[in-house]
Amino acid sequence: MTYPPLALTLGDPAGIGPELTVSAWETLRLSEHCFFWLGDPALLNNVIPTEIISTPLEARRVFPHALPVLPLLCTVPVVPGQPNAQNAQTIISSIQQATQLTLSQDASGVVTNPIAKHILAESGFPHPGHTEFLAELCSAPGHEIMMLASPELRVVPVTIHVSLQTAITTLTTQRIVDVARITHHALIRDFGIQSPRLAIAGLNPHAGEAGLMGHEEQTIITPAINILRAQGINAQGPYPPDTMFSATARTRYDAAICMYHDQGLIPLKTLDMAQGVNITLGLPIVRTSPDHGTAFDIARALDHSPRAADARSLIAAIRTASTMVQHRKENAV
Amino acid sequence: MTYPPLALTLGDPAGIGPELTVSAWETLRLSEHCFFWLGDPALLNNVIPTEIISTPLEARRVFPHALPVLPLLCTVPVVPGQPNAQNAQTIISSIQQATQLTLSQDASGVVTNPIAKHILAESGFPHPGHTEFLAELCSAPGHEIMMLASPELRVVPVTIHVSLQTAITTLTTQRIVDVARITHHALIRDFGIQSPRLAIAGLNPHAGEAGLMGHEEQTIITPAINILRAQGINAQGPYPPDTMFSATARTRYDAAICMYHDQGLIPLKTLDMAQGVNITLGLPIVRTSPDHGTAFDIARALDHSPRAADARSLIAAIRTASTMVQHRKENAV
Repeated sequence: MTYPPLALTLGDPAGIGPELTVSAWETLRLSEHCFFWLGDPALLNNVIPTEIISTPLEARRVFPHALPVLPLLCTVPVVPGQPNAQNAQTIISSIQQATQLTLSQDASGVVTNPIAKHILAESGFPHPGHTEFLAELCSAPGHEIMMLASPELRVVPVTIHVSLQTAITTLTTQRIVDVARITHHALIRDFGIQSPRLAIAGLNPHAGEAGLMGHEEQTIITPAINILRAQGINAQGPYPPDTMFSATARTRYDAAICMYHDQGLIPLKTLDMAQGVNITLGLPIVRTSPDHGTAFDIARALDHSPRAADARSLIAAIRTASTMVQHRKENAV
Repeated sequence: MTYPPLALTLGDPAGIGPELTVSAWETLRLSEHCFFWLGDPALLNNVIPTEIISTPLEARRVFPHALPVLPLLCTVPVVPGQPNAQNAQTIISSIQQATQLTLSQDASGVVTNPIAKHILAESGFPHPGHTEFLAELCSAPGHEIMMLASPELRVVPVTIHVSLQTAITTLTTQRIVDVARITHHALIRDFGIQSPRLAIAGLNPHAGEAGLMGHEEQTIITPAINILRAQGINAQGPYPPDTMFSATARTRYDAAICMYHDQGLIPLKTLDMAQGVNITLGLPIVRTSPDHGTAFDIARALDHSPRAADARSLIAAIRTASTMVQHRKENAV
């Protein structure tokens, strides 16, 4: 059984997105993980065969011998390493079209190439990043949550891009319950895990050591765990944050619910910088992205010399999205 | 050139300390890493040869064929797994004597077996833990700082056993400068690193992203880095906490100065739970300990069946202390 292809966005054309796209197609073209690119074919400098498509339906036929491209032309010429806000609209259109095609089921999921928020902000883009923009496009603002996944670990931070102080003061029982519930259901539907095991982190050193080093475990986190368990969700904790990511501890859960950004991202990136995938849960669509930025410092015009940018994270993002789509369809049957 | 032996403390006799001590002697007895034990020989049940010594001077002669023991008898019989506050004074005496013997240069450093703070607290012990007690015994209260070291990473948290909220509100430029300076000098004197490279972590996600997610990088941390550099210390940062512990990033520094407990301990324990060593810097004496607790749940009476407790962290602590002593003596010449 085949599914519609994945939609891969342009990302910032002055970053490494075009190079990553080429590498991903080279690696995946003979696999089942079919995608098409919403981008400007001129950026690829003919280093791989491309074929313009007019509808995602054509992608699977094209994919083994050429990168299927749904063309979106840049407004001004692209200089690698030098982002230009005049191309912001093309970047944004790529995200919009990928999302629309997925909502209409012409594509089966969205994989986004990296963008630079400050470049889009210059052109009036009001969203902190991809994730919030996608949530709005899906009419689900505020429902989005971020999972980071690598071969060894899945983490879901309860708070994301706020100061550590704000992370502490905005932590609530309700937010933990919401994030854990969405994660639980996503592990079943999108990851094929029938009985997900969630590990809930503490906030403080040693998970507060019975209140000696902070009270949030007692007042906020344990009440959330109790609510989750009463709903039949296998949530354990709160665990001391420093020991819960060891090799042994990691085998005991399917995802760690983390109280702040770095509590989840430090162990993930310490273990594996190359293959981390950013997954947005809580939206009606499947969406993944590589776990890194535009890397303007190493971006360069494509030619036939060996690729310099490490495409493993984008490739992992495409494979993960494809697998999620497959699980979701199987679970829907 | 040989140095005085290391003094290994009793720790809580109802924990795994006695078993770890036996394993450490078995592993190290033919090495240069000589130690004697300040404990109760009855606890060892004759599973290894022991020899009572009356002074540390005898330890090096004894060490290859028997564990040298400076005897300290428990007050009440020890039941493995069931700590008893009536033995607290023996536990405390062991730490006191080890420290005194090191201050008098009869021993070259202190390695502590794990204690249970709540058991000592029951008997009126007023210190939060070993480290603070040792600082007082050395007449250096408040000067102690904690380094955690594994084969892959050294971390020094600026704040330790306080809530995350307190860690944020008590963070000061002066404290970062003090901790980084002590670390810098210890890396030279005790670790033999001529030109130490310090990586200073940010506090907030993405190191605050120019103030968008927190201001402490701008108001507290960067000023500390500037002061350190003006003093000739190679301090770089503030680095985004999630990426600074990756395999590549770790090669670029000798120690990471971390803003709170879990920022340093999460990456260290994620990489290596077995061989982490806790090192107290800022004291006149060398002191290390294993990076785990008493493990009352797996403690048992010693017999000739295979050892169950993992002694790698204690063995690493002894080796580390021994190497620190050697560097310190060489640097003092």
